[in-house]
Amino acid sequence: MIEQRVVDRLRSTFELYGFAPLETRSVEPLDTLLSKGETSKEVYLLHRLQGSADATGEDQLGLHFDLTVPFARFVVENAGKLQFPFRRYQIQKVWRGERPQEGRYREFLQADIDVVNRDSLPFHYDTEMPLVIGDALSGLPIPPVRILVNNRKVCEGFYRGLGLADTDQVLRTVDKLDKIGPAKVAGLLVETAGATEAQAAACLELAAISADDGSFVEAVRKLGVTDPLLDEGLGELVRVVQAAREHAPGLVVADLKIARGLDYYTGTVYETQLLGYERFGSICSGGRYDNLASSGKERFPGVGISIGVSRMLGLLFGRQALTVSRSVPTAVLVALPHEDQRVACDRIAGALRRRGIPTEVAPAAAKFGKQIQYADRRGIPYVWFPGEPDTVKDIRSGEQVEADAAGWAPPVADLHPAVGAGEPR
Amino acid sequence: MIEQRVVDRLRSTFELYGFAPLETRSVEPLDTLLSKGETSKEVYLLHRLQGSADATGEDQLGLHFDLTVPFARFVVENAGKLQFPFRRYQIQKVWRGERPQEGRYREFLQADIDVVNRDSLPFHYDTEMPLVIGDALSGLPIPPVRILVNNRKVCEGFYRGLGLADTDQVLRTVDKLDKIGPAKVAGLLVETAGATEAQAAACLELAAISADDGSFVEAVRKLGVTDPLLDEGLGELVRVVQAAREHAPGLVVADLKIARGLDYYTGTVYETQLLGYERFGSICSGGRYDNLASSGKERFPGVGISIGVSRMLGLLFGRQALTVSRSVPTAVLVALPHEDQRVACDRIAGALRRRGIPTEVAPAAAKFGKQIQYADRRGIPYVWFPGEPDTVKDIRSGEQVEADAAGWAPPVADLHPAVGAGEPR
Repeated sequence: MIEQRVVDRLRSTFELYGFAPLETRSVEPLDTLLSKGETSKEVYLLHRLQGSADATGEDQLGLHFDLTVPFARFVVENAGKLQFPFRRYQIQKVWRGERPQEGRYREFLQADIDVVNRDSLPFHYDTEMPLVIGDALSGLPIPPVRILVNNRKVCEGFYRGLGLADTDQVLRTVDKLDKIGPAKVAGLLVETAGATEAQAAACLELAAISADDGSFVEAVRKLGVTDPLLDEGLGELVRVVQAAREHAPGLVVADLKIARGLDYYTGTVYETQLLGYERFGSICSGGRYDNLASSGKERFPGVGISIGVSRMLGLLFGRQALTVSRSVPTAVLVALPHEDQRVACDRIAGALRRRGIPTEVAPAAAKFGKQIQYADRRGIPYVWFPGEPDTVKDIRSGEQVEADAAGWAPPVADLHPAVGAGEPR
Repeated sequence: MIEQRVVDRLRSTFELYGFAPLETRSVEPLDTLLSKGETSKEVYLLHRLQGSADATGEDQLGLHFDLTVPFARFVVENAGKLQFPFRRYQIQKVWRGERPQEGRYREFLQADIDVVNRDSLPFHYDTEMPLVIGDALSGLPIPPVRILVNNRKVCEGFYRGLGLADTDQVLRTVDKLDKIGPAKVAGLLVETAGATEAQAAACLELAAISADDGSFVEAVRKLGVTDPLLDEGLGELVRVVQAAREHAPGLVVADLKIARGLDYYTGTVYETQLLGYERFGSICSGGRYDNLASSGKERFPGVGISIGVSRMLGLLFGRQALTVSRSVPTAVLVALPHEDQRVACDRIAGALRRRGIPTEVAPAAAKFGKQIQYADRRGIPYVWFPGEPDTVKDIRSGEQVEADAAGWAPPVADLHPAVGAGEPR
């Protein structure tokens, strides 16, 4: 019920921003799944229990491991039918053959938003993404989030300006900062990326820069590296930070160590910290991808961001940080005085349901004490007693009042289970 | 968007009846999936692309092919934590390696409700199931449905009373009536089930009985067969039909040819016709299962019903029988006079969204004609023009009025895309 409430909030926020719902099949051809690199080892392949001999190559099918690669496939396949720019959200399960751990599962729910366009995509969409996410998550009983933003062009331009040729290898190495620390990253940069110690130190200095306003530009300039791509990246990154300061102060921080590994991003990249849960990593990531979707001469650049719903909720559930007021949707249990009266009790339930009040009739004409226990064990707040007149009892307070099924309603707060923040462990 | 609207309606109806939401993992051990027979050949197995040598036997994993078998597994595994009787609904994708055809897919969405109890389950739940389904589907812009009900005990008791020993084989053969017709069924009953021609004819006479009231009992009695199990089944079936006549006249018909093949049902069975689409088979099926979930000495009898959401919608989409008024959730497009004014336009959009109005800002400061075209192509009904004062134009009627983003709202009917019944082909 908590997950559903969260997904409903995400969905309604995404729709407020005009994102249209999309679902793609869970299964894609293996070559589609593998067309974008790294995650290949985590794919689950399918085969029929009674199928013919193992299919190979292009016939092989696998479960999708994210929603971006299937979305790119969908866009290319349906380009002739879509209106561009195309804004969609997609909330689906994905599967990865990873080692399960806290906040990491083999089957998990993601909630993505993306905008793609034909040929080129205006940059203002890069500034919009974190604002939508901030809005969606702010309406939930979860800790506040901080969205960390960087831009690949800043890193690549900086490394190139420093004189490092294998910028991919530098990026990949700097991406390990949180895992192995600066000393080992510096060592690896020298060992594997052809950096001098001074170049390695400069890369670490860049990665240490972070600011919630445009001041990071000055900090980068002080490092004395110049490159046209660096300038372009800084200009873009400033726009993201400034738009966030205008519309959602405190939400977005420029953090120049964010890299997103070997993913398909070409500009802006996002990661998101759940405050108090930073050590578990990002709960919401994404970025700009200019080359993910293309078909012949056509190109469909996009920008998107993906909330790891299961990851976020798994962490919060693990600390009892989310609660729900009852275990069933039912607001009213109609007590059953005698099995003969089931039709009459069903009519009372029907009258309440027609007015939107979730109602059950007791399973059996047991003693009323046992019927009240049925409600109590599930957290159902009200028990209805048919009679002349009918009465309804709030079993939390014990208060019992006369009531008419055609008119009575519980307070709005009791109508549906209430989801709230728990006392985290 | 149409599917979402349908699923929302199902969900809210199920919750009105006190069913709690449940999701189970998509993947189950193969031995769980195969523990209940027939569908084994349709299972998709998983293996890791880079995994170790193929796992076998109990280590093998497959995608679930329905939601009942995983639910039974869940109940047995969590029996100690659940409150019985346990009412849950479950709306998830399932997978079957079938030949795809109209209304049949390899990946499809099912929406199930079930009630299970420990030891024994009162029969009134068998009468409740079709009423919940009737209520859920009646609120949708789809053709009316007719729920056909039978009871395994009626058939088995009748066959036994006739002197036929292999009642399973008779049931399986009679289940082919719609596919191969009565002459061939009679032939097969003689050939494979040890029936005389008179016995085969009696089986066909039973299968031909159908009534929307208790009159079917008399029709069965006229066939002159007696058996205690037959009596028990007739008594149960009458209760289902009578409860439906009381609460939802016209919804339920006793139809004595309904069998549900080799499934795990032990009493009541349900099938559902979408009127006008009868030849495509049942869109919603289920029944009573007394032995599906058990663990050692414990038994968890249940009754449930499953709506084939993809099947139903696939048939309706195939005939353009469902429409939606626009292709995006957006109700208002804020026109952008100049790129400099994006911040101001974003503020207008923010003000509208805070009051629940789905709003986009135009992608670029193109000519207004082109911006209006952007809205028109997506079916967005309103375009907002910033100015002094702001104005908003209904681009369907051309009417344009002064408006304030802090107060204006579209008519409720325009707030969200409207789903309706199309002119079926």
